[in-house]
Amino acid sequence: MIALNSNRELANEMAKLLGCELAKSSVKQFSDGEIQISIDESVRGSEVFIVQSTSEPNNEHIMELLIMIDALKRASAKTINVVIPYYSYARQDRKARSREPITAKLIANLLVTTGVTRVLTMDFHAPQTQGFFDIPVEHLTGIPILSEYFEKKGLEDIVIVAPHNGGVVRARKMAGLLNAPIALIDRRRPEHDESEIMNIIGNIEGKNAIIIDDLIDTAGTITTGANSLIEKGAKAVYACCTHAVLSGPAISRIASSSIKELVVTNTIRLPEEKLINKITSLSVAPLLVEAIDRIHNEKAVSPLFE
Amino acid sequence: MIALNSNRELANEMAKLLGCELAKSSVKQFSDGEIQISIDESVRGSEVFIVQSTSEPNNEHIMELLIMIDALKRASAKTINVVIPYYSYARQDRKARSREPITAKLIANLLVTTGVTRVLTMDFHAPQTQGFFDIPVEHLTGIPILSEYFEKKGLEDIVIVAPHNGGVVRARKMAGLLNAPIALIDRRRPEHDESEIMNIIGNIEGKNAIIIDDLIDTAGTITTGANSLIEKGAKAVYACCTHAVLSGPAISRIASSSIKELVVTNTIRLPEEKLINKITSLSVAPLLVEAIDRIHNEKAVSPLFE
Amino acid sequence: MIALNSNRELANEMAKLLGCELAKSSVKQFSDGEIQISIDESVRGSEVFIVQSTSEPNNEHIMELLIMIDALKRASAKTINVVIPYYSYARQDRKARSREPITAKLIANLLVTTGVTRVLTMDFHAPQTQGFFDIPVEHLTGIPILSEYFEKKGLEDIVIVAPHNGGVVRARKMAGLLNAPIALIDRRRPEHDESEIMNIIGNIEGKNAIIIDDLIDTAGTITTGANSLIEKGAKAVYACCTHAVLSGPAISRIASSSIKELVVTNTIRLPEEKLINKITSLSVAPLLVEAIDRIHNEKAVSPLFE
Amino acid sequence: MIALNSNRELANEMAKLLGCELAKSSVKQFSDGEIQISIDESVRGSEVFIVQSTSEPNNEHIMELLIMIDALKRASAKTINVVIPYYSYARQDRKARSREPITAKLIANLLVTTGVTRVLTMDFHAPQTQGFFDIPVEHLTGIPILSEYFEKKGLEDIVIVAPHNGGVVRARKMAGLLNAPIALIDRRRPEHDESEIMNIIGNIEGKNAIIIDDLIDTAGTITTGANSLIEKGAKAVYACCTHAVLSGPAISRIASSSIKELVVTNTIRLPEEKLINKITSLSVAPLLVEAIDRIHNEKAVSPLFE
Amino acid sequence: MIALNSNRELANEMAKLLGCELAKSSVKQFSDGEIQISIDESVRGSEVFIVQSTSEPNNEHIMELLIMIDALKRASAKTINVVIPYYSYARQDRKARSREPITAKLIANLLVTTGVTRVLTMDFHAPQTQGFFDIPVEHLTGIPILSEYFEKKGLEDIVIVAPHNGGVVRARKMAGLLNAPIALIDRRRPEHDESEIMNIIGNIEGKNAIIIDDLIDTAGTITTGANSLIEKGAKAVYACCTHAVLSGPAISRIASSSIKELVVTNTIRLPEEKLINKITSLSVAPLLVEAIDRIHNEKAVSPLFE
Amino acid sequence: MIALNSNRELANEMAKLLGCELAKSSVKQFSDGEIQISIDESVRGSEVFIVQSTSEPNNEHIMELLIMIDALKRASAKTINVVIPYYSYARQDRKARSREPITAKLIANLLVTTGVTRVLTMDFHAPQTQGFFDIPVEHLTGIPILSEYFEKKGLEDIVIVAPHNGGVVRARKMAGLLNAPIALIDRRRPEHDESEIMNIIGNIEGKNAIIIDDLIDTAGTITTGANSLIEKGAKAVYACCTHAVLSGPAISRIASSSIKELVVTNTIRLPEEKLINKITSLSVAPLLVEAIDRIHNEKAVSPLFE
Repeated sequence: MIALNSNRELANEMAKLLGCELAKSSVKQFSDGEIQISIDESVRGSEVFIVQSTSEPNNEHIMELLIMIDALKRASAKTINVVIPYYSYARQDRKARSREPITAKLIANLLVTTGVTRVLTMDFHAPQTQGFFDIPVEHLTGIPILSEYFEKKGLEDIVIVAPHNGGVVRARKMAGLLNAPIALIDRRRPEHDESEIMNIIGNIEGKNAIIIDDLIDTAGTITTGANSLIEKGAKAVYACCTHAVLSGPAISRIASSSIKELVVTNTIRLPEEKLINKITSLSVAPLLVEAIDRIHNEKAVSPLFE
Repeated sequence: MIALNSNRELANEMAKLLGCELAKSSVKQFSDGEIQISIDESVRGSEVFIVQSTSEPNNEHIMELLIMIDALKRASAKTINVVIPYYSYARQDRKARSREPITAKLIANLLVTTGVTRVLTMDFHAPQTQGFFDIPVEHLTGIPILSEYFEKKGLEDIVIVAPHNGGVVRARKMAGLLNAPIALIDRRRPEHDESEIMNIIGNIEGKNAIIIDDLIDTAGTITTGANSLIEKGAKAVYACCTHAVLSGPAISRIASSSIKELVVTNTIRLPEEKLINKITSLSVAPLLVEAIDRIHNEKAVSPLFE
Repeated sequence: MIALNSNRELANEMAKLLGCELAKSSVKQFSDGEIQISIDESVRGSEVFIVQSTSEPNNEHIMELLIMIDALKRASAKTINVVIPYYSYARQDRKARSREPITAKLIANLLVTTGVTRVLTMDFHAPQTQGFFDIPVEHLTGIPILSEYFEKKGLEDIVIVAPHNGGVVRARKMAGLLNAPIALIDRRRPEHDESEIMNIIGNIEGKNAIIIDDLIDTAGTITTGANSLIEKGAKAVYACCTHAVLSGPAISRIASSSIKELVVTNTIRLPEEKLINKITSLSVAPLLVEAIDRIHNEKAVSPLFE
Repeated sequence: MIALNSNRELANEMAKLLGCELAKSSVKQFSDGEIQISIDESVRGSEVFIVQSTSEPNNEHIMELLIMIDALKRASAKTINVVIPYYSYARQDRKARSREPITAKLIANLLVTTGVTRVLTMDFHAPQTQGFFDIPVEHLTGIPILSEYFEKKGLEDIVIVAPHNGGVVRARKMAGLLNAPIALIDRRRPEHDESEIMNIIGNIEGKNAIIIDDLIDTAGTITTGANSLIEKGAKAVYACCTHAVLSGPAISRIASSSIKELVVTNTIRLPEEKLINKITSLSVAPLLVEAIDRIHNEKAVSPLFE
Repeated sequence: MIALNSNRELANEMAKLLGCELAKSSVKQFSDGEIQISIDESVRGSEVFIVQSTSEPNNEHIMELLIMIDALKRASAKTINVVIPYYSYARQDRKARSREPITAKLIANLLVTTGVTRVLTMDFHAPQTQGFFDIPVEHLTGIPILSEYFEKKGLEDIVIVAPHNGGVVRARKMAGLLNAPIALIDRRRPEHDESEIMNIIGNIEGKNAIIIDDLIDTAGTITTGANSLIEKGAKAVYACCTHAVLSGPAISRIASSSIKELVVTNTIRLPEEKLINKITSLSVAPLLVEAIDRIHNEKAVSPLFE
Repeated sequence: MIALNSNRELANEMAKLLGCELAKSSVKQFSDGEIQISIDESVRGSEVFIVQSTSEPNNEHIMELLIMIDALKRASAKTINVVIPYYSYARQDRKARSREPITAKLIANLLVTTGVTRVLTMDFHAPQTQGFFDIPVEHLTGIPILSEYFEKKGLEDIVIVAPHNGGVVRARKMAGLLNAPIALIDRRRPEHDESEIMNIIGNIEGKNAIIIDDLIDTAGTITTGANSLIEKGAKAVYACCTHAVLSGPAISRIASSSIKELVVTNTIRLPEEKLINKITSLSVAPLLVEAIDRIHNEKAVSPLFE
């Protein structure tokens, strides 16, 4: 198992759970910005697992990953399995407007061309992204981890809320696990350049609302949604997601929003200053480790996602 | 332009609008079921457009298409553009359970391997399917055609209804064109083998509900949804979709359902006996022809889908 | 080992001989004609053998096979070996006229693109079809099985007859095994649209003629040939082939022809109604099983075809 | 149009017929045997036709061709069309015994990988070799040229003879053009290491026999066949083929055989000393030039081979 | 012509020389670091030239370039030509130690996979990097531009110095243009971890030494070399290179070194603060524009590099 | 392990050191120059190592190698490792002039396309040629073997000389192993068609000069260099290289030159008549065998080249 720079803490936690050591390797940058990879032990004939989220700075992390794969391929590794807890650019998965790239597919092509033999990842923005690969993809989900947390918390009278029109399937999945109803924040922009109008569809009055999304980036959607839920009579608003991107104004927006607690996982390493009181972070290491163990021993991975 | 067997009527209509003739060609089956292609004029150096929906019998239609592409490639066609108004297997676009294929990606791979240079299609089940290709895909939508029909109809007090949790984005898109609110039929199956429970989220009382989906297959979802809407107080229920698959019990279910009118397009050829009174069919030929014209003259296709 | 729909009886026979069980899996069709694959046990790291003839309905059977391969590849099977006792479209192996496809090559490309690692098949129409693949192909022949049958039968004074100009090499091969002379039915069509003229070259008078071909489709060639042989003085006419396609008018033609007995193998499953008295079916299961056993144990397969 | 070393005379003849000049280029060998290519005028954006038979020394000629293609690709040629009047290794088109290569497919793969966009060739050993390519192949035949020569010669009472079991289809094709019957020399080897036994099937007594093959290599088959025909009563024996390989003992065998005249084409350049009196050489330049002209002007090539 | 972010000034200068306008497009970063491309006019059927050096931050610039190529390919651009005046990672062009990547090849693979049809670049670290591509590469050199500058300057009694053992071929090339002798700074490291020893080979006493390299990164090599030349009696030391990477301590090292003048080109955009007095920057725009013009008009590019 | 024709002696020596036998196989030529491969034992599932230098006749040897690889791939070998002690065409590794091929890359592409899984070779002309492959390449060097010979010889006061501008890095490497200084023979051609001028840079007076190069072909460079060194006062001149191509006038030039001794290795088989007294040949078999052993046992190969 090899850790790259994006999330060494998670990799260390995983190595400890697996009872193995991380391979001696390092990734540095020269002063001109070029990445220098160094692998300090033989990998000839090995099944290698690389742990790297492509979180910010994501282009650096993508290039680190590709360069490491190139080195491993030339060094005669037997298989090159990449564990990408957070796969960035996942939202650029279709042409929404003219002349747009499909960057999520591009990244998939780059990985496969360079020599990856298997991908292990979590909660793509759309599950169709699995089909961007023609190699085995183990696509795990953090929803059971998040659900279990809320179940233990013992909130009563809850409703699971999709923060935008595209999030209803995910909300329905969590609602199924928690045996709860769902609601939806319907967003539209009446004319070009006018401001967005939010409408809450479904019953949230007097309830504990839990907003769920795959990732939270600038937190605009989730905080305006939370405030709107409180306005319309929700008793309290919780939020959760698998990938805590939390870029730009995210932390200050969350801090000043109506969100009572935000539950995330550690697919992306959060620096201390972002781990404010309101945020609870759960570990995905046990889940990933179980998957790696099953892959390595050629057992079905399916029990982890069905 | 070459027409295959799935929808010669649409191809004829398109040829008439383009002011060109269909190339002389035929597709037959030998008595053992093998397909025999015959192209009766030179295609050397030509930009060829093949029109073929991969509708039922879809495996036959897929093979017809692949064999025609192989023949054109070997006959030195300059470009091979396939117009697939209805792209079947589009729902198998991710692994929903263990050891499932991703057939929508498989078909994309087969087309590209065989030699397609461009795909022109309509309303994939998920827009991410565009990324299954690394060649240009022109992905058009029938929603404006359907919306325009309902606008002309002049119904008042309408609500656009997503018939299942995954259909809200599409409903929101139509609602935007018709300046209407949306509602959602939330479906869940409490325990394995128990029957599905439907819940209507959003206000539909006394309204003219228009259910929209990308395709209607056995019509189970749409007819149970329609009946439920009427029960819950909708004034009338209309339904619409781009792709009228209408297989198995679909027609009898629609006939006996609360649906007042079902509006579809001709991406799939409907035999006379399926065109019951309740069903209105709109043509996509003008839209496809406009796209082909723009491609041929190297003008932007974007005005057609933005 | 996984059986698809084309010939489950052969697969069952093979599994029994191998002393293994068929993997739990099923292939169904939805009411709209889409194929649904289900593999009910883990294949991770397994060497999988799929048994599927691409016999009628051949396009369905080809798509079944491709979809199963796609599923196995994504499910991390170690190797995907396809056993195709009858490989359809094998006669479309060259451009005989302008703008024809080479469908036998197309199918090979589709299989390889989708992820096959090895092909095991029998009696291609032309042996050059092996070269359509760049993966290992084990190309077995049913001629020894057919020859052995006739040897046991103890016919005297036999002559092996090629039913058309392209079949002489095959007839020579069987003649070598049975130590017999050969003859040839020379066919030509003097002018376009005139009817075919048959000429028998070689001595067949008073002999037991055995016509051999790779496959018998509509049985026109073989029955007109047989009648002609009798006319020209043959004592009796037998016929044999590996692949009993027997489509359209084949059975009635055979029934009413001068053919005394037709010997075939079970590469294609024959329904009861086609197994008329005149037809004897021999099993290729022992041959295929021996090949699989040798492949699995990394022993040379060559003793089976040299 | 660029000529390589194998057959500059044919290329010059073709250039004259086309009314164009050969591009200035040369192919030399360094003293260590490495090939040095030099192209002395710009090819940027050009449609290039390279003329090269891969005749003896065939490995040199194959490498010359590949290196020239590599140079043209890097020099931005628009299309790279290779005219290979004689495609060597064409007989290694299937695995006849264990662990054999399929060299005809290997050469096809090498050509395509290196960057060829189209192949123009003549009389493959088996027509299935067309399917070894997935790029357009124009497969011409010299049989009409040979037939026309014999027609003009005005021989009476002719029979077309296939010199071995695999040659009957070719003999039938020529017989059709000359309105003649066919015969066959059936060859077999009763036991390993015993000498071959020849049997003549069909009526040749008192006739002018014309043996036809795709190529004549050491001339063993054709000369033993010819002598046998004379023994069995043929009036005279002529022979013809497209590709005059004529290696090793060929010329002396032909000189001392019963063959009255051997008619060949110039797909392979014959040195003066091989052009003995008995041999007549016909030019394929007009045929190839007609094909190039049609390709260049995007007209159907089919009239040339149908 | 499309400019990306690395060197818009050069792109503007080129556009002005070409008399065309840059296509309306932009490249931004979202707050989470993801790149967003926007192309604001149709490129369907166009020959596009993208100008992008992969200078610092090079991983960002590489990803910008790949994403733009992906967008252009999906938007039906006819050809995608990338002008990469400075190609970073060019020094990682071989495995110097175990388990190293060959990043220069990796980048080439990424570009080709994504859809580039031609590369136009300058002064690779080693010319062999051209072979990392199988598409046309126009490899231009800045040495004539640098030489011409020194020729105009009118220095007398010059010697061209290679700053390290690998730079002699480049020095010889410049020396040929200036009709000057060469010298070499021989560097070695006697034992691991000991400091490097420099030896000057060749006559430099009393001469105007001009050090030449392909790129200057941290300027350690060139400044220690310059100081050593002065110590050993050189009259004055000038330095030049095509690619002014000038990272980390480079500027301060140069400022305090014995180098009298450093001449560079603008393949990499230098910020104002790096353009200290000692540094002279020459433009490569006329050279690149001449090459683009020749490519566009299908004239030979060779006069520019021979 | 399989030996082809170029250097069976080296292969035999390697097999003896490995304690294994060469696989029964042969490579013959038919009289028309086509290569015939025969592998006489099963390779199914084996890790095969093929030993073949692509020395003169190099095109024959390249084709032999490719055809053998094709045969092994189709015969289900598990891995195909090619040991190419001398890789010809290595000097054609860049476009030095317009419209040149990059043949070293072409050969790499041919090998990879045909199915090689690993390359083991020695002293490429430029180390960047490693990057022409995307499969593992073990690139060994003969410099330590040559250095050790000279060290044992006990020459005093030596200087390592690069015979041309591009050879300084190699000379520096040997000089490091022998703790010696370096010198350089600077060559230039003042005007087109004038004769080359040689200049010696560095101190060689009264010293034992050892010229080192990767290969010696016609020996022009090395013998003119040697003579020049003696003229300028060198005490004696030795020469060495890994690859003894020694074509054309090489032997007579060496015999009559000032070179006292030429030390080479046996990567290329030298016929008796070329092994003149002045030439000493060292074996690379132990080095190659050590590498194969490490690869087979999945140990790091790096100790052999660091």
